[in-house]
Amino acid sequence: MRIALDAVGGDFFPESPVKGAIEAVTSNPDLTVILVGPKELVEAEITKNDYDGKQLVVQDAPEIIRMNEHAAKAVKSKPGSSICVGLGLHAKGYSDAFVSAGNTGALLAASAVILGRLKGVLRPTIAAYYPTVKGFRLLVDAGANLETKPEFLYQFGVMGAVYARSFFGVDNPKIGLLNIGEEPEKGTEVLKETFKLLSKRDDFVGNLEGRDILAAKADVFVADGLVGNLLLKFGESIASDLKPLVAHAMAKLKLDESQQHLVAKVLATTFQPFEYQRVGGVPFLGVNGVSLVGHGKSNPEAIKNMILHAAKMVEARINERIVAALSEE
Amino acid sequence: MRIALDAVGGDFFPESPVKGAIEAVTSNPDLTVILVGPKELVEAEITKNDYDGKQLVVQDAPEIIRMNEHAAKAVKSKPGSSICVGLGLHAKGYSDAFVSAGNTGALLAASAVILGRLKGVLRPTIAAYYPTVKGFRLLVDAGANLETKPEFLYQFGVMGAVYARSFFGVDNPKIGLLNIGEEPEKGTEVLKETFKLLSKRDDFVGNLEGRDILAAKADVFVADGLVGNLLLKFGESIASDLKPLVAHAMAKLKLDESQQHLVAKVLATTFQPFEYQRVGGVPFLGVNGVSLVGHGKSNPEAIKNMILHAAKMVEARINERIVAALSEE
Repeated sequence: MRIALDAVGGDFFPESPVKGAIEAVTSNPDLTVILVGPKELVEAEITKNDYDGKQLVVQDAPEIIRMNEHAAKAVKSKPGSSICVGLGLHAKGYSDAFVSAGNTGALLAASAVILGRLKGVLRPTIAAYYPTVKGFRLLVDAGANLETKPEFLYQFGVMGAVYARSFFGVDNPKIGLLNIGEEPEKGTEVLKETFKLLSKRDDFVGNLEGRDILAAKADVFVADGLVGNLLLKFGESIASDLKPLVAHAMAKLKLDESQQHLVAKVLATTFQPFEYQRVGGVPFLGVNGVSLVGHGKSNPEAIKNMILHAAKMVEARINERIVAALSEE
Repeated sequence: MRIALDAVGGDFFPESPVKGAIEAVTSNPDLTVILVGPKELVEAEITKNDYDGKQLVVQDAPEIIRMNEHAAKAVKSKPGSSICVGLGLHAKGYSDAFVSAGNTGALLAASAVILGRLKGVLRPTIAAYYPTVKGFRLLVDAGANLETKPEFLYQFGVMGAVYARSFFGVDNPKIGLLNIGEEPEKGTEVLKETFKLLSKRDDFVGNLEGRDILAAKADVFVADGLVGNLLLKFGESIASDLKPLVAHAMAKLKLDESQQHLVAKVLATTFQPFEYQRVGGVPFLGVNGVSLVGHGKSNPEAIKNMILHAAKMVEARINERIVAALSEE
């Protein structure tokens, strides 16, 4: 198993990617990580970490796409970037996957162009992990496709279900369509048509509302990228924004220091399973390859888990199963 | 001040509306509430509550629009419903406002048709209260307008700002546009154009992301009705869905019974300021009148607060100020 890793992706390169790569290969003797980035920078960082094993390989890529660069322009103007070079390696078969904590837009654009689409896929999508009372569930699309057609949304659901079966330990993942009400005639024209398309499937549970997400009324929540992205970033903010509200309540109730400490510990434990470090990265589904993007703030643990996540996607043959699921129609 | 109230709206009629009306008039000697609904039913309920003062008036409306009826059809086929009769009273000047905990869609449709639009308003909107670290802030549109144009979204922002100035004690309310990123070029075509329109205003703080809502980066969050409705119902679900997750964490940490009780008390206190009973109802903005809709589960306290909320909107002359704000362009 060979996973290519963007060594200059995210806010903390080259430290986080290199440390994360070392942790990943240390945990799995059959794994090779190809670190893609400016050769000297990456090699110096490997040396700094005293790693001298053979499970890390460096692939030179002199250019860097920054976090806030315009995605399409950056991909076009920097063919020598870690993102373009890394995805090129993967497309040519030199690696089984490519993972990065870099510019999401650039990664999506480059993945679509360099890897291409899987047979039958209309639009690749970002599938995000969403915290619920049953643990993580899937939200597709999380921001890749803002203007959608019913056929796109339908495929997001199908691809998400294939992924959820392997990754959430659910035998028959349920697909739900996010809408303003449960009735089939609710929503925009696109949502009404999507409802009709999804209704042909046994795993479709119908329209779901905003209150059904945390309650995990489905395993795969389908939405356009605007809705998905807003919900995703909203969800990520709950844990931290709850803190001042809880602090205010504790002051009102005049809790002593040890009581406050207890409450803080309970809250930290509550949100711990949902820290992005545990997932590492989220997949682009529908591209002809395995490509994951991690949080810009990824620490070494997150990078390690993103690498292992990609390896698991390769082993699960997600793409073969997506093509099969879409050709069943 | 005369407020017309739907006596058969919501899940708990006639008990909740009648009790709420009695509480409202008891708290304010200058207030008259016109209870609109089937005469005998309403009068019997008033008698049951031993109310014999002169601040309650009953207006017969024999028909009832149920919570799950198709909005447009119900309004058309039931001119004798409490909703149509009550809004008709208001339109003819017999009351200063109309409030209901009934079918939101029917209320919106009937408000738009019977009251009409304010001068200059393209589309009436539902403005929802949204919980943030700074207390409630405004989210417009909360589900009335699914297919929007930039001009509609622009007006939602302007109307929301007028409302927020009176109701949130903010001198210069800030308007934010919900989007997938901060840059002006982000989002759908509609959002890009809306950004340009709003950019002419001093109170526009730009595009905001999902993580900026709870953090209250604006006082008025502008979105189309699909996004707004999903976020609204999602927000309403946080308090209850957090409970099993916190319970799980407490079990993991082996908290004793008194510790668990303490944590539960802190959480209840945290969410208390955001209970819908305190707001009572949310306004339709842009209609030529004052029309509020309450939660279907409204208890007497919520009904009372909705009535007082409507009275405050009348006193604040919200509509005059909306017309003035829109004509300034």
